[in-house]
Amino acid sequence: MTWHAAPLAGRTEFLRSSAIRDLLGLAGRSDIVSLAGGLPATETFPVEAVREACARVLATRPHDALQYGPSEGIAPLREWVAAHLGARGMHFDPDQVLITSGSQQGLDLIGKVLIDAGSAVLVERPSYLGALQAFGLYAPRFVGIDADAEGPLPLAFAAALPGARLAYLQPHFSNPGGCSLSDTRAAHLAPLLAAAPTWLVEDDPYAEIWFETPPQPGLIARGVAQGVHLGSFSKVLAPGLRLGWIAAPRELAPKLAQARQAADLQSSSFAQWLVLELLRGGAVERGLPALRQLYRGRRDALLAALQAHMPAGVRWSRPGGGLFVWVTLPHGLDAAALLPQALGRGVAYVPGVSFDVRGEARNTLRLSYSSVDEARIDAAIATLGALFEHALRAAPEARAA
Amino acid sequence: MTWHAAPLAGRTEFLRSSAIRDLLGLAGRSDIVSLAGGLPATETFPVEAVREACARVLATRPHDALQYGPSEGIAPLREWVAAHLGARGMHFDPDQVLITSGSQQGLDLIGKVLIDAGSAVLVERPSYLGALQAFGLYAPRFVGIDADAEGPLPLAFAAALPGARLAYLQPHFSNPGGCSLSDTRAAHLAPLLAAAPTWLVEDDPYAEIWFETPPQPGLIARGVAQGVHLGSFSKVLAPGLRLGWIAAPRELAPKLAQARQAADLQSSSFAQWLVLELLRGGAVERGLPALRQLYRGRRDALLAALQAHMPAGVRWSRPGGGLFVWVTLPHGLDAAALLPQALGRGVAYVPGVSFDVRGEARNTLRLSYSSVDEARIDAAIATLGALFEHALRAAPEARAA
Repeated sequence: MTWHAAPLAGRTEFLRSSAIRDLLGLAGRSDIVSLAGGLPATETFPVEAVREACARVLATRPHDALQYGPSEGIAPLREWVAAHLGARGMHFDPDQVLITSGSQQGLDLIGKVLIDAGSAVLVERPSYLGALQAFGLYAPRFVGIDADAEGPLPLAFAAALPGARLAYLQPHFSNPGGCSLSDTRAAHLAPLLAAAPTWLVEDDPYAEIWFETPPQPGLIARGVAQGVHLGSFSKVLAPGLRLGWIAAPRELAPKLAQARQAADLQSSSFAQWLVLELLRGGAVERGLPALRQLYRGRRDALLAALQAHMPAGVRWSRPGGGLFVWVTLPHGLDAAALLPQALGRGVAYVPGVSFDVRGEARNTLRLSYSSVDEARIDAAIATLGALFEHALRAAPEARAA
Repeated sequence: MTWHAAPLAGRTEFLRSSAIRDLLGLAGRSDIVSLAGGLPATETFPVEAVREACARVLATRPHDALQYGPSEGIAPLREWVAAHLGARGMHFDPDQVLITSGSQQGLDLIGKVLIDAGSAVLVERPSYLGALQAFGLYAPRFVGIDADAEGPLPLAFAAALPGARLAYLQPHFSNPGGCSLSDTRAAHLAPLLAAAPTWLVEDDPYAEIWFETPPQPGLIARGVAQGVHLGSFSKVLAPGLRLGWIAAPRELAPKLAQARQAADLQSSSFAQWLVLELLRGGAVERGLPALRQLYRGRRDALLAALQAHMPAGVRWSRPGGGLFVWVTLPHGLDAAALLPQALGRGVAYVPGVSFDVRGEARNTLRLSYSSVDEARIDAAIATLGALFEHALRAAPEARAA
């Protein structure tokens, strides 16, 4: 029969393919060193423990694992999350915890439940692309807050806060900035938020991946009552299981759960019992020291390589944890325009402009050291250094960042 | 710190808790026989095959299974779905297939990508509650089309079609109606749709659960080009794995994939490799005859019990497959109002009004025979029969349905 084109929803104009996801395919190519992905290192996956946990779950509660379960998540896993957050100074009861399919799903549910068309949503510059993508579908008015290595700038934050529906922050080892909220900055921001009818969303998947010292408390741990916390098992266990959580104030948690029902009913029962088994058996806890050590070595390798190979005028963040380094080239260079040449030389990165809600930061890029071994990191950064050096010579007007 | 209530998004006024999900907790209570759930029978779960498949996946491709993967789903599973649909007369290439976390997620993505506030969305009366819930958040104007045992009535459908954004149908063994589109009805509807710039969504999770004869082709298999097909592994394998699919026209599939990225990145890599292993090893195919036989026996038991115990004036559907029977009480009886008494006597069902977009069908209820053994079905229906009989005597003005 003939095809009669039918219209799409207007919000599809806000649909964007993620630059990160589009570059994900490169991670499997042997001729490309991908500093783009931010994929956890496969060496950190506790394969043997997962195998044992699968067998145990299927031996002890096969029907629970394969059947439908509660939309909010299985009770013992919600209890584990509440206890874990409590130990970090964030006090939520288990019934305020919703198990999600990764923290990306938390972002979508937050967008659905909190954002109207035109709602002011405060985000750092740069901010996490997946949040911009998820929130963007609900047509907010994004307000980009300039940030430095300590977090969002207090004056800019205070100026933008009145009337804002929500503020989205990453308190620890941010993606892509590689920054954490400092003690001083947090002490400035917390009272501003506490006085505002604005939701705070703290997206916190990297808190456990610290290298020298555990992170300072975020704003929820400092008592901001309207805080919604997002966490994930993807970075400390395995992303392929797709499990994370939201912990939310009592006013909000039931709304998120209802939105969750409509979105996809629930997260995999099997994955939830599996992760609970891995938590109880200690596999996650036992894996953390080696995981931190692996990523710390790679971070060190990346920072040393940047120091050795980057031309004058290039700056970068020095993360105390997480998976990412944010690089700022001299003004006038365009990291997106240079990407095809970098790929031609066998190196991938994510152009920073995708993370900037104003679309201005064209001279920036995100590097991830998480899934590349140290020897290849050095060679890849040498390649990028030479490329940027060459580009700088061709653009003498470029100014130091 | 003090709490400053911050506003929610306007669309939260459309959030409804699902009556089905709210009653799900009853399924585990030993003092209640739940005809409410529609849960697959745990006896049908191929536990031993799942155990072997877990071991094999973790032995042969542990890193693929535990790492991030493509948003659209893993290629061999998309190929399996395309081949499966092709064998049923629905022609989609693998790149038109998106693996989802159950078909409920497909409904949400369709809402996101196709429904604007006020878009006319045609649904049968009754229709699947999860679809009403998912679509409802995007604030459509629902248009309820009266249906009989053969599907939506052609005149009502033709009258409502002009200007409609999408029509949502369940071609086979519908939830809650227990009906299938007849050959004659399909032959009436297909040309109407083919001439309309309206998307067709065919939600088809029960097609494999037929009792006497395989189902007739639906509208997509009859050539309606703007058809989006939704399928699921929940009913033929296990719902706790949360895997299903959408197959969509070329114009639509990439938009659904982008919306999927923003929603939760991807379905579990582990679950996808696991299901692929189970499909390739033949566990799903091998399980179908016993699964059909089990449900057929329970359907027969439910129909026989209704015949034996229901008072005059009560009508019900006679499904040729699937998991549900739709019961219509005499006008004047209110199934929602009677539910507390039914629960008090140890039997649960879902009041039908939740499935009616007009909220009028108060004299209806949904019964599921899927997870209750035959002996308990008879006793439960005897209880309901006595309850309805009693209610009828108390309401002499009630008219035969």
